[in-house]
Amino acid sequence: MFNFTFTYTDLYELAMGQVYFLNGKKDQKAVFDFFFRKNPFNSGYAVFAGLEDFLDITENLKFDESDLDFLKENGFDIGFLSYLKNFRFRGDIVSCKEGEIVFASEPIVQIEASIIEAQIIETILLNILNFQTLIATKASRLRLVSGNKTLIDFGLRRAQGPGGYYASRAAIIGGFDATSNVCAGKDYNVPVSGTMAHSFVQCFDNELEAFRKFAKNWPDKCVLLVDTYDTLGSGVPNAIKTAKEMEKNGNFLKGIRLDSGDLAYLAKESRRMLDQAGLHYVKIAASNKLNEFVIRSLELQNAPIDIYGVGTNLVTGYPDGAVDGVYKMSSVSGKSKIKLTETLKKTSLPDKKKILRLSDSYGNWIGADAVYIDNEGESEMMFHPFELLKSMRIKDYKKEALLNPVMKNGKRLNPEPLLSEISQYTKSRLNMLPEEYKRMENPHIYKIGISKGLKEKRDRLIEQYKRKMN
Amino acid sequence: MFNFTFTYTDLYELAMGQVYFLNGKKDQKAVFDFFFRKNPFNSGYAVFAGLEDFLDITENLKFDESDLDFLKENGFDIGFLSYLKNFRFRGDIVSCKEGEIVFASEPIVQIEASIIEAQIIETILLNILNFQTLIATKASRLRLVSGNKTLIDFGLRRAQGPGGYYASRAAIIGGFDATSNVCAGKDYNVPVSGTMAHSFVQCFDNELEAFRKFAKNWPDKCVLLVDTYDTLGSGVPNAIKTAKEMEKNGNFLKGIRLDSGDLAYLAKESRRMLDQAGLHYVKIAASNKLNEFVIRSLELQNAPIDIYGVGTNLVTGYPDGAVDGVYKMSSVSGKSKIKLTETLKKTSLPDKKKILRLSDSYGNWIGADAVYIDNEGESEMMFHPFELLKSMRIKDYKKEALLNPVMKNGKRLNPEPLLSEISQYTKSRLNMLPEEYKRMENPHIYKIGISKGLKEKRDRLIEQYKRKMN
Repeated sequence: MFNFTFTYTDLYELAMGQVYFLNGKKDQKAVFDFFFRKNPFNSGYAVFAGLEDFLDITENLKFDESDLDFLKENGFDIGFLSYLKNFRFRGDIVSCKEGEIVFASEPIVQIEASIIEAQIIETILLNILNFQTLIATKASRLRLVSGNKTLIDFGLRRAQGPGGYYASRAAIIGGFDATSNVCAGKDYNVPVSGTMAHSFVQCFDNELEAFRKFAKNWPDKCVLLVDTYDTLGSGVPNAIKTAKEMEKNGNFLKGIRLDSGDLAYLAKESRRMLDQAGLHYVKIAASNKLNEFVIRSLELQNAPIDIYGVGTNLVTGYPDGAVDGVYKMSSVSGKSKIKLTETLKKTSLPDKKKILRLSDSYGNWIGADAVYIDNEGESEMMFHPFELLKSMRIKDYKKEALLNPVMKNGKRLNPEPLLSEISQYTKSRLNMLPEEYKRMENPHIYKIGISKGLKEKRDRLIEQYKRKMN
Repeated sequence: MFNFTFTYTDLYELAMGQVYFLNGKKDQKAVFDFFFRKNPFNSGYAVFAGLEDFLDITENLKFDESDLDFLKENGFDIGFLSYLKNFRFRGDIVSCKEGEIVFASEPIVQIEASIIEAQIIETILLNILNFQTLIATKASRLRLVSGNKTLIDFGLRRAQGPGGYYASRAAIIGGFDATSNVCAGKDYNVPVSGTMAHSFVQCFDNELEAFRKFAKNWPDKCVLLVDTYDTLGSGVPNAIKTAKEMEKNGNFLKGIRLDSGDLAYLAKESRRMLDQAGLHYVKIAASNKLNEFVIRSLELQNAPIDIYGVGTNLVTGYPDGAVDGVYKMSSVSGKSKIKLTETLKKTSLPDKKKILRLSDSYGNWIGADAVYIDNEGESEMMFHPFELLKSMRIKDYKKEALLNPVMKNGKRLNPEPLLSEISQYTKSRLNMLPEEYKRMENPHIYKIGISKGLKEKRDRLIEQYKRKMN
């Protein structure tokens, strides 16, 4: 669908790259962490998504001739440009599995590569992972309030341009069942769904004729849009008439769709009319500016809606619009690095790291992940990264390593999982997350702590920097 | 950059298409209007963008073999699929110019095509125009508060996936000067900009060495990031030292960049330090979560910032995330159509239309556009579309037609303008819009009225539908 090259990046990655190149630093190994500072939507968690797309794209990135010509016009050095000719990403990546439940402040992906490689892919990594994580998290929130109802992504028309393609994918990871987006459905092998618009009904002399024609041509997949003229006055009665006619031919109307008005009221009235006509099997779909709060309200009112179609609020990740993911250097040429800031809160963590998720002896998540230096042994305690008074004994918990190698020397290590497998993984992991982290309002805060070794290392680096400054 | 096919659509467009095809309706001509119901950002206007991309893409859309295979798997009819094999969009399009200042409720683009063609392109039309209009409008708001300061798009890393590509384009239309996005810069021939990240500074033994190396390799384009360790304590002093060394070689430091802390305070202090060192020519760039309100505040404080880098808030169109553009049928087979809703406010307008922008005898915009039926003559008055008490005499104003043919039989009529020309057009048109429509808070409402002929036609159709219903 997309032809990404290394120019899908910010110019400064290349400007810096040239300086590294011209100063003999091109083969210096650097380690970068991807993490975000705040769970989106004031949520108690996030669903990590985008990894497999990122790996696919990264494996194949290169500069084409016209890219290099453009850089030449922009003053880049001939020697550097000739180096870029055969440039590929040949680094190593460790990562949480796609679909993992993750939290603010823990390193979800780590890149180890030559400094130029690590830097050039920063933008595309952030671009893909930030966005898909946003949408998968949003989708999972919609799933949480919808129980086992069917959820369909209707968002492409209001998506942020071709971002809609990936939004449809990430929605499936977060728990959606299908999409209206044909190209995403095709490329990611997910169910596609969709029947008719108001314009279709308007195209015929009357609503009943429109319904009959549609039912005849789509006998197995017929969902009739009933609100073009008057939902209860004409739409539902005409749908019932159509369903009865379909039955005579051995077919069954799949559903009706409500797209305006008070959905709770209309769903209840429509259900009553359908049931009175013996059409218990006909499902009710609803759409129109749905979000997790509207759906929760509809569910609380026992609105007999079987299928929710969610558009704009899903695919644009409204109201947040972005995950604030960042990409910070944690070592270069074997030297540990941190980015100092005014507050400890935003100071980054040095070195290659591992994340261990803690659970009790029954395997129940206790609501805490500990971040260690990669080669560090056992840590009796974990420490709050910036609240110095807070610590917690972790020695006796079971520990699950979340970061695993996914790319070596620029090549993927594992075959790409099916999207349905990723989605299944998210579902199983979200089931393990206790309720209190999943509530919509003021969710419990999942603890992200740092090990003794990591804390000491970071604090030592801060001291060193402070001394150097003075 | 992108390989769009007709599958960049919602499934229902194709499902409806098949019914039209199987019922002898494939050659029925339909007219659809693109319009939105609410200016984004509570703004007094919107900047229409995305048209040229939409025309380019639409001219070349087709189904490829794998698309048709996918549709076959999804139960589509063999006859219809064979019809789709050579399917192209061969319709006509009239539109406002890209970059035009437009308003809620007026038809900005009209499509006239066979019903199947008109329907299949609905999704991609909405996807492209909604998003670019959102971003161009946001960019224009940022431009309005920034005066003649330089504005650079830094958003790709937080953009909604490949939506970032078009965001960078739309930002230029709205008034941005440059982008960090290399591929968008290359494809749309706009200035690219960018120098260094914190990681660059961290990669060297000390800040001064990092600055010197960068200055040596980029003597003409050197902007030094001064907040890696301590902005006023080390960053600015080291930048001054570097600038002085550059001067000895006949080079001039272009600028410094502030990316954290209190930008107003740090800019003033930095300016003072630079000026004291005689470096009056060194510019100050600022970035970090900027939006139109933060920039307005910085300007009100007389912060001596020359260049603003805006990221997330620009490219995601925060806080709105989407323009609510819709695509409504206004006639089919020569029959006028409206979409009825509970309120007159959301009822659509029938027939092919024209928009006339009113100005006084000096050419000053008076703050009103009148929507007519396309072939309608003079209208003495225009009427508020749903407030029945409001009307206005328009006969004596000058009138400028905003909708012009841009595509005929599926082929563009005009060569694609340069992005800089579109951007220039926006600038000139925005200059014509009186101040009160451009203020950030409670802008004056630009009037969109309907002509006598259009009002009568619409009201007659409403009456007809009502009679039919009863």
